Amino acid sequence: MKIKELQNSSIGVFDSGLGGLTVLKSLEKILPNESFIYFGDTAHVPYGTKSVDTVIKYSQNILDFFIKQRTKAVVIACNTASAVAYHALQKNYSIPLFDVVSPSVEFALHESKTKNVGVIGTTSTVSSKAYSRQFAEKNSDFFIHEISCPLFVPVIEEGWADTGIAREIASIYLQDLKEKNIDTLILGCTHYPIMADIIQSVLPIHVQLVFSGETVGQKLSHYLNENKLIRTSASDGHVEFYVSDFPQKFNELGGRFFGRKLIDVTHISLL
Amino acid sequence: MKIKELQNSSIGVFDSGLGGLTVLKSLEKILPNESFIYFGDTAHVPYGTKSVDTVIKYSQNILDFFIKQRTKAVVIACNTASAVAYHALQKNYSIPLFDVVSPSVEFALHESKTKNVGVIGTTSTVSSKAYSRQFAEKNSDFFIHEISCPLFVPVIEEGWADTGIAREIASIYLQDLKEKNIDTLILGCTHYPIMADIIQSVLPIHVQLVFSGETVGQKLSHYLNENKLIRTSASDGHVEFYVSDFPQKFNELGGRFFGRKLIDVTHISLL
Repeated sequence: MKIKELQNSSIGVFDSGLGGLTVLKSLEKILPNESFIYFGDTAHVPYGTKSVDTVIKYSQNILDFFIKQRTKAVVIACNTASAVAYHALQKNYSIPLFDVVSPSVEFALHESKTKNVGVIGTTSTVSSKAYSRQFAEKNSDFFIHEISCPLFVPVIEEGWADTGIAREIASIYLQDLKEKNIDTLILGCTHYPIMADIIQSVLPIHVQLVFSGETVGQKLSHYLNENKLIRTSASDGHVEFYVSDFPQKFNELGGRFFGRKLIDVTHISLL
Repeated sequence: MKIKELQNSSIGVFDSGLGGLTVLKSLEKILPNESFIYFGDTAHVPYGTKSVDTVIKYSQNILDFFIKQRTKAVVIACNTASAVAYHALQKNYSIPLFDVVSPSVEFALHESKTKNVGVIGTTSTVSSKAYSRQFAEKNSDFFIHEISCPLFVPVIEEGWADTGIAREIASIYLQDLKEKNIDTLILGCTHYPIMADIIQSVLPIHVQLVFSGETVGQKLSHYLNENKLIRTSASDGHVEFYVSDFPQKFNELGGRFFGRKLIDVTHISLL
């Protein structure tokens, strides 16, 4: 591809379902002139319960799809795929790849003064120890406190993110974190930004929440600028959506995750 | 098989995961001298989001397994499979099959005086209209009020079935049912018996809960007696457990669902 063509091509973003739409929302805010293609692998959601080999295979299918679409970079907007498939994908693909784990780890390493960082996520993300391991590799004098919050995703998908029940549940899950002297909390699940206000409200006011959409967005923006790959077209950027299955829920909930109605959603099977 | 051998063979019970263990618990209570083989299709859980053809295929694989084990009858202890696969399976298999939907419908038709019956279940069960349809086929002057309670399963799996949060969630979901003059409520999900006390506590005291384990157990007991297939061996009946995947959760939660520790759990792939 010529440089002009590459500049004006889209950025691929994928997740097992619709959680990655919160990441896409942040990317759009940070890079308002870019075009995006979002792929929600709704036929295979959730990735968290699948084997590593299976998650890698699904992710490869999606990368192949993005390559056919001539995207200039791909964001893995899924904590499970970031944790278990990112390195394997990097080995086998030359397309620039961005995961959602490492930018948040780097941000927290830079920002935390108390060197006590909380990470909340699904059971599978917390069990994978993906965050703890990355912190350990980069700076061993940090204390990482990982807590799984299995009810957050169903509560958010039920549309109850702003209710008293959500607050009670958050308060129970995050109780132990309050005694850990954390000043930074990574939202290690792409659903959680929807519940950010409630999460913040049950924690000491000085605790800073880390949103992976923002940290990966900054990293991506830096990469595009460094490599002169920022979109130059005067026309507005656009977003297309692809899903591998069409659950009623995707359109219903998607709007809430993305912040506006999803239009241009195409069903496509990659198998 | 000779009649003696058939009498002393096991009863197969299957579910997509561990919910069916509440059914198994009831069956054991009603038929304490019988032996059982439980199959939890944990590699494919949940069935509710899969297509009808896929659920039929999974169920066929499990039936084939039970036939090899020489079971004398099979209980489909899963609302989704009962709703979408029971009739297809009945056509293709001669082994006596028992679903969990129709016995509860028959029980409610017999018991309800107000002719207003509530049904609670997962989103997929309620969307399938399996209960409403069966009521309509059998007695058209009943009013059926179906409510989906998507947070009950995750709350139960989190071990929070007896908490104030569970009560609040139940109270919100069941609010509308209170005004419908129901005197009978079918628990249309095999997880819900774990939360029965909380569910009962937020409803008027005269509302009778219907447990599918008990209604299918009575039907199965009647069938075995009628056909002289009751186990005659003087030795104690036993229970074996098979799962298609071995999530940490199965043993952890299984005991709570079954009422005692699961022993003799074997991992087996049917594909």
